[in-house]
Amino acid sequence: MHQAYNQLIERFNKLYRFQHLSAITQWDQSAMMPSGGNQARSEALAELSSLMHELLTEEQVGHWIKEARESADDSITQSSIREMERSWRKASVMPADLVKAQSLANSKCEHAWRTQRPENNWKDFSENLKEVVKLAQEEASIRSAASGAQDYDAMLELYEPGMTSSELDVLFGNLKSWLPETLQTVVEQQKNDSLIASQGHYSTENQKALGLDVMKLLGFDFNHGRLDVSVHPFCGGVPEDVRLTTRYNEEDFVESLMGTIHETGHARYNQNLPEDLRSLPLGSYRSMGVHEGQSLFFEMQLGRSPAFLQLIRPLIVKHLAGGQKNDRFSQTNLEKIYNRVKPGFIRVDADEISYPMHVILRYEIEKALIEGDLLVDDLPQVWDEKMQAYLGLSTGKNHSIGCMQDIHWPMGAFGYFPSYTLGAMYAAQQFSAVKRQLPDVESRIASGDLEPVFSWLTENIWQQGCKLETHELYTTATGEPLNADHFKQHILNRYLND
Amino acid sequence: MHQAYNQLIERFNKLYRFQHLSAITQWDQSAMMPSGGNQARSEALAELSSLMHELLTEEQVGHWIKEARESADDSITQSSIREMERSWRKASVMPADLVKAQSLANSKCEHAWRTQRPENNWKDFSENLKEVVKLAQEEASIRSAASGAQDYDAMLELYEPGMTSSELDVLFGNLKSWLPETLQTVVEQQKNDSLIASQGHYSTENQKALGLDVMKLLGFDFNHGRLDVSVHPFCGGVPEDVRLTTRYNEEDFVESLMGTIHETGHARYNQNLPEDLRSLPLGSYRSMGVHEGQSLFFEMQLGRSPAFLQLIRPLIVKHLAGGQKNDRFSQTNLEKIYNRVKPGFIRVDADEISYPMHVILRYEIEKALIEGDLLVDDLPQVWDEKMQAYLGLSTGKNHSIGCMQDIHWPMGAFGYFPSYTLGAMYAAQQFSAVKRQLPDVESRIASGDLEPVFSWLTENIWQQGCKLETHELYTTATGEPLNADHFKQHILNRYLND
Repeated sequence: MHQAYNQLIERFNKLYRFQHLSAITQWDQSAMMPSGGNQARSEALAELSSLMHELLTEEQVGHWIKEARESADDSITQSSIREMERSWRKASVMPADLVKAQSLANSKCEHAWRTQRPENNWKDFSENLKEVVKLAQEEASIRSAASGAQDYDAMLELYEPGMTSSELDVLFGNLKSWLPETLQTVVEQQKNDSLIASQGHYSTENQKALGLDVMKLLGFDFNHGRLDVSVHPFCGGVPEDVRLTTRYNEEDFVESLMGTIHETGHARYNQNLPEDLRSLPLGSYRSMGVHEGQSLFFEMQLGRSPAFLQLIRPLIVKHLAGGQKNDRFSQTNLEKIYNRVKPGFIRVDADEISYPMHVILRYEIEKALIEGDLLVDDLPQVWDEKMQAYLGLSTGKNHSIGCMQDIHWPMGAFGYFPSYTLGAMYAAQQFSAVKRQLPDVESRIASGDLEPVFSWLTENIWQQGCKLETHELYTTATGEPLNADHFKQHILNRYLND
Repeated sequence: MHQAYNQLIERFNKLYRFQHLSAITQWDQSAMMPSGGNQARSEALAELSSLMHELLTEEQVGHWIKEARESADDSITQSSIREMERSWRKASVMPADLVKAQSLANSKCEHAWRTQRPENNWKDFSENLKEVVKLAQEEASIRSAASGAQDYDAMLELYEPGMTSSELDVLFGNLKSWLPETLQTVVEQQKNDSLIASQGHYSTENQKALGLDVMKLLGFDFNHGRLDVSVHPFCGGVPEDVRLTTRYNEEDFVESLMGTIHETGHARYNQNLPEDLRSLPLGSYRSMGVHEGQSLFFEMQLGRSPAFLQLIRPLIVKHLAGGQKNDRFSQTNLEKIYNRVKPGFIRVDADEISYPMHVILRYEIEKALIEGDLLVDDLPQVWDEKMQAYLGLSTGKNHSIGCMQDIHWPMGAFGYFPSYTLGAMYAAQQFSAVKRQLPDVESRIASGDLEPVFSWLTENIWQQGCKLETHELYTTATGEPLNADHFKQHILNRYLND
């Protein structure tokens, strides 16, 4: 076993080193590269990606896994091999022809979507999307045949290993039972609540200085990462060198500040994965949902809480109001700004109460698409019906703010959307566990003592990597399996003072 | 032949794509990366480098070359195969053991040198250097056995293909015959010439804006490149996306401005290599000396000339003097600042008259080291003697500003130094040819009409890539083989009005 396992370690180390180059040059592509460099960069990245695919799916890798698994006798090695196999299977199960056909169809659809969306051109878009969906159905049926899971579940597994649609139905069913009504109540309640709008003039320089100060407060390690600008903010790079991006709107500070806090959550997870296991699948992040659980913990549980706003208010006043008293930045007004609820058409702009309904709508639609229960041609109508039912808004024929708004489907990423709302639930459940352990955590946060919170996350989530399956990870960390109650309680507490 | 040649093209395309990732991540390492990312980055780059070495030296590559060469029937394909073979041979001739031993010894020596140099610790440094020299001697003897060249010439070939030490002896012999005396004359002459010193306060922001404006004037393509900051300025990246760096001293603008002009010369060469051949050795830069010929053309022939200073003076006044009249930035004073001659100990700070003597000294010493005619222990004494003879300065026992000042030997790069002075001669010979073709070139430059100069360079040098050997390239472009006369005439014109 040792020999086979050692071969595997060597192979995954090599892949990790190549992944490093891929991650840094992809960050560069978004944050630094002039557009004229794009073709050469894409070709270089495709070459590396195909090399990495070969290294991962070589026949001998399968043999090594089998051999190593048969004689693995401690639980950590068993977990390590389980994650190696997961990674290997995910790549090897797909026939090369289908991978190539998808790569072409998805690129074509995504590329055209970039102009079709602003033109509201559903007709041409839907033709491309049909091909993307058809190939995704093939992918789902191949993956499900190999794993024994249902079609859509096999796609879900790519982003949220271990999650099933029957579990999602329970979790999301819970949300659907109270969330739309709560949303209406909160909107009504906030109607008479006046606030000083956040708009003004805030230089990029000042916003950046504020963002950096808040990142320091949040424990971002600047010796292993940096902050830059990109059109679509993200957290990239590698655990040893996390590249976080944001964007600045000089008329409004709200998005950049909270966006930076959100990405810092992703960043700290990456920076605190188990150092000795980083180069193996075992030391990687657990799932997209768990990743989002960390960013939403930072943004929603911590960032928009009265205690945290109290803590960073002096920094906001310093950088955005030149240190002068300003009613816009009073504690009360900041809380109002950062907890405003307003249902809208666009998912990425949604408040935390509306957001899950955007996700559930997409989950239900993409599941039906993959399982052949919904045709692409019927998508706009179903979208509109669900928008009215869940958020009280009708998209009508404006597809650009309806079913054409997201990049996920054009690029063939079916099964990803649930991660966002799973993340919101993971985040709430984490904070609830922290509060049980540290009843005075809010006053500690307000006074700047964030260490206990970070220690809890480090020990219970970040340092765990993939040692446990997700459900074990949360049961161990929080004492109960993932459920929607903590998210519900969080919403009721924050918005209805329940 | 077609099949073998096509295989070669495919292989070199693949190498080019990997080289892209290497170049961008190396730029990032110098210009962006926080220091905590260094170990992971170095490991990732080493993994890629070893992959590329394998891809280049695989046995079949040799067979393809042989087969393709035997049936190549047009001159461009013949040149292409010649350059592929050069690249292949350079890598394949070395035994893996020696490559590994050198990698270890050179890293060790270079790493220790970084602290030994400031401590003036010759004793410990020389122990490491002995091992580096010993291995470089082995390398030279293996390379020379394979190529039939003399030991040192085989090292020279790595940086300046086709150049020999007997040709260098003629070229450098010419310089030695008049340069030290000219240097003394110019120094005497400038002694009574007062100037307003360049020191003041210049914000990084203003210097950067000036640098960008000058780069635009010099035709740098910002759609295929960018300007950033690094401790040691360089021109990196790839032809499709050239990454140029500089550094700013807020007390003095002189170095950053001329450094940016210098690197822009390198950058334009890279950006204008033949686009359809870029991914093959045939479309690469001709040699390190030719590369330096472009940067020194920009810096020395163009940048410090009265005509060019006249052209950019309004930009200097705009960015560094707030648009106000300032005697420091008068035409006369700028010319004096940028043509000041002052022999010193440090090569990288040298003016253009002293510089070749620094290079010749190193050339003579490194040749003797490689050929076993000089022991490392005797290096400091020989250095001091030559410094006195060539520049009238004694290093004494201060090795940190003597034979320990450069990174080249600690890292095992023997044969590189001559490129700097070959570059100065290429640059002068190029400008001389331009002047013959365009007698009014200087007034054109002063008026901002740089296009004829750039067209000449594009057509005669940049677009040629490696189609011709260096001596043919220069004979074709300038009507005569490389010689020292144009450089001499340039120096006499500029500094002694001859």
